[in-house]
Amino acid sequence: MKLIITQSVLAELLETAKNGISTKPIDPILGSLLIEASDSGRLTVIGTDLNVSIKTTAITNIIRSGVVALNAKLLVDTVNNLGSGELDIEVSDRACVISHSTGKCRIIGGNPEDFPSIPETENPTEISIPSKKLQAALEACLYCSSADETKLILTGVHFQLQGENWSCASTDGHRLAFVSSKLERNYEPLSFTVPRRSLTELGKILATTAENNSCTLKVANNTIQFILPNAELTSRLLEGEFPRINNLIPRSFANELIVERKGMEIILKRISHFAEKKHKIVKILWEVNDQQATLMTGNTDIGDAVDSLLMKTQTSIGENIGIGVNSSYLQEALKHISTDEILFRFNKPLQPVIISPVGGLLDQLTLIMPVDVQDFDKPENLATTSKPETETVDISEQEVSNETTNIAETSPSDTASTSKSKSRKRNKQEAKPVETAAL
Amino acid sequence: MKLIITQSVLAELLETAKNGISTKPIDPILGSLLIEASDSGRLTVIGTDLNVSIKTTAITNIIRSGVVALNAKLLVDTVNNLGSGELDIEVSDRACVISHSTGKCRIIGGNPEDFPSIPETENPTEISIPSKKLQAALEACLYCSSADETKLILTGVHFQLQGENWSCASTDGHRLAFVSSKLERNYEPLSFTVPRRSLTELGKILATTAENNSCTLKVANNTIQFILPNAELTSRLLEGEFPRINNLIPRSFANELIVERKGMEIILKRISHFAEKKHKIVKILWEVNDQQATLMTGNTDIGDAVDSLLMKTQTSIGENIGIGVNSSYLQEALKHISTDEILFRFNKPLQPVIISPVGGLLDQLTLIMPVDVQDFDKPENLATTSKPETETVDISEQEVSNETTNIAETSPSDTASTSKSKSRKRNKQEAKPVETAAL
Repeated sequence: MKLIITQSVLAELLETAKNGISTKPIDPILGSLLIEASDSGRLTVIGTDLNVSIKTTAITNIIRSGVVALNAKLLVDTVNNLGSGELDIEVSDRACVISHSTGKCRIIGGNPEDFPSIPETENPTEISIPSKKLQAALEACLYCSSADETKLILTGVHFQLQGENWSCASTDGHRLAFVSSKLERNYEPLSFTVPRRSLTELGKILATTAENNSCTLKVANNTIQFILPNAELTSRLLEGEFPRINNLIPRSFANELIVERKGMEIILKRISHFAEKKHKIVKILWEVNDQQATLMTGNTDIGDAVDSLLMKTQTSIGENIGIGVNSSYLQEALKHISTDEILFRFNKPLQPVIISPVGGLLDQLTLIMPVDVQDFDKPENLATTSKPETETVDISEQEVSNETTNIAETSPSDTASTSKSKSRKRNKQEAKPVETAAL
Repeated sequence: MKLIITQSVLAELLETAKNGISTKPIDPILGSLLIEASDSGRLTVIGTDLNVSIKTTAITNIIRSGVVALNAKLLVDTVNNLGSGELDIEVSDRACVISHSTGKCRIIGGNPEDFPSIPETENPTEISIPSKKLQAALEACLYCSSADETKLILTGVHFQLQGENWSCASTDGHRLAFVSSKLERNYEPLSFTVPRRSLTELGKILATTAENNSCTLKVANNTIQFILPNAELTSRLLEGEFPRINNLIPRSFANELIVERKGMEIILKRISHFAEKKHKIVKILWEVNDQQATLMTGNTDIGDAVDSLLMKTQTSIGENIGIGVNSSYLQEALKHISTDEILFRFNKPLQPVIISPVGGLLDQLTLIMPVDVQDFDKPENLATTSKPETETVDISEQEVSNETTNIAETSPSDTASTSKSKSRKRNKQEAKPVETAAL
């Protein structure tokens, strides 16, 4: 094997393919990149952890074809630190010598025959999705999938095609994300769930290549291929039935409110340090007359905080409404929206809260379950009160519903029925509405 | 206590004083900042871990004097996230309410009387050093002090005043750093050792304030104060006698060679991945006829590398000379030099190597002990050799002297006497010259 390649071209091929490799390979060969130079002038680099494989290709000056498996970390560290310009690469036996303008380095490789083969998709269904939209869908959904490997199907993002619609959904049991868009033509109904890790790597590839092109998805045999110009990602699919989360998303809303995303992000960053550590509850009081949203924390040992920003009401709302949310979930939801304004939609204080961008490339929403906090009076006297125990804002004696309200066990109609009760002495059970499993 | 202060002014005061606090305070009060508003209009903030204390001050609009101790992390996180503008701060009892344009937050503080008092220096010796030079001295010396707390005096930087000279020195036993400069007037001989951690924090303060001002050092009672405009750092001094490292620095050199710093940094970054992991040895072959320095690694399981850069000889050198160095030590030495060119000085391959900036604000040097590698032939045939075992560059069968050659046990004259022996079968002991302790 002998070839000449521009340093920046090789660096890019390696950097992308390397993401297929596990950070802790179980075998040295899985810590290697397979590099193949073909007589047709195509250089291919493959990295895999057996679940996901990334293949990158470029056309270059190949003098003699061949194949070599080289330690990914050493190769990437070396090539990234070489100066720009042409590299002369020659492999004999398993030793790969890279010559550049001021020196040479030699990497001893493994046996390329030990490198695992990448699964093929046989008679696949092919779908074409604009790369920018696919990238936006991953950005909107990936963070809501579970990072807990024991949650099996919930560790993936669920793709669904129906007619000319496609959608992606994810949930970790406490919140869910859902996006949908149109396809260019009609497809037979098809659904599959792709592991989070595979899509995280796909997201990185899309971030560097997603311009005006499209990504071709080939689905078959529990395997999916995402085909982009110069890069292919192959992944196994997750087995099992994904929760029917569509049932959990309300169809109509009594309250629709718009705030500026950055303004709310700044306030959350400011006051969330004051939220008690366990449930991280922040209360949002939607003040209809003042057209402002006031965010506040409960009164804890360390103190409390209150802050406001302007809001716009989209529906005619009679009186002030307060909802309690986990500030981390809310912050993460805002972080994955890219538009200037965001829309909050909900019915009653203990029913699901839907957060969406106003505008954007896709129909996008995040559903978070609110938590039960009862005292939403605005603490006007915060500044002048010297004794913490007399503060108006005080959630310490309240019944915090349940940090881990499980979406999979909740249906909107159940929630509606329980939130009517407003008694301070209500049973804790009520705030965690579990009557019939919606799924 | 009641005052009005600009957010950015308060944020800066807090951010600096907070660095005095330990990352893991042993007591909640030591995780607090003491904030004192005086009737004279001066706001003072103090953070301490008992060994080092940082006090910052600013003039602001103080309506009512007072003192409060507030959790540093919560206060800093809060103030940093407030928008720019005026903040209204009011403390009653221990509750501090900060009001800003869109909201308020209240932090419940500790008892300010529990806050430790900062030691005073009585009848101190006062020394004035230009802040920029002090900053450069810390940059040059701190990294060579030991991070191992059991090494006592070696965990500090040793200051020495003699006549109109001042110097700083540090060593971790394997390498040493030394800088010196002139003072504006003559001083009585004085020497003291300041803990690494205190000087690291001083370095951060100097990085933001060191312009054309001077830093006043007040030394007395095992305590030192560094006084800067609007900031004071008080530190205990380390007890014990610092090694007399001056004896270790050769006075004359047979070989003086200049290379470009960035060029050598890039090459080291490129080839150090190939150095065997334990001793990290890189060999530098100074090629007189080609006026180039060639850096290479030994031949290991993973491969090897060779790379060259231009050099200038300052002395008439007859033949090529090779030295072996720990690449990490060399990389760190280069990282703490700011000039474009660096000067390597040494006598024989196993004697101390002195690395200095060419130019710069101070007389600066780093001394590193070379390691014994014997085969310095340049591997011309690296590119064409397919069998690793026939490589010219091969340190695997050589006697690697000793990674941990101890500077404190070495004197230049000892090293000189042992390095005469060039036999391949020499005793390992010879490469670790320990005859008489120089200190």
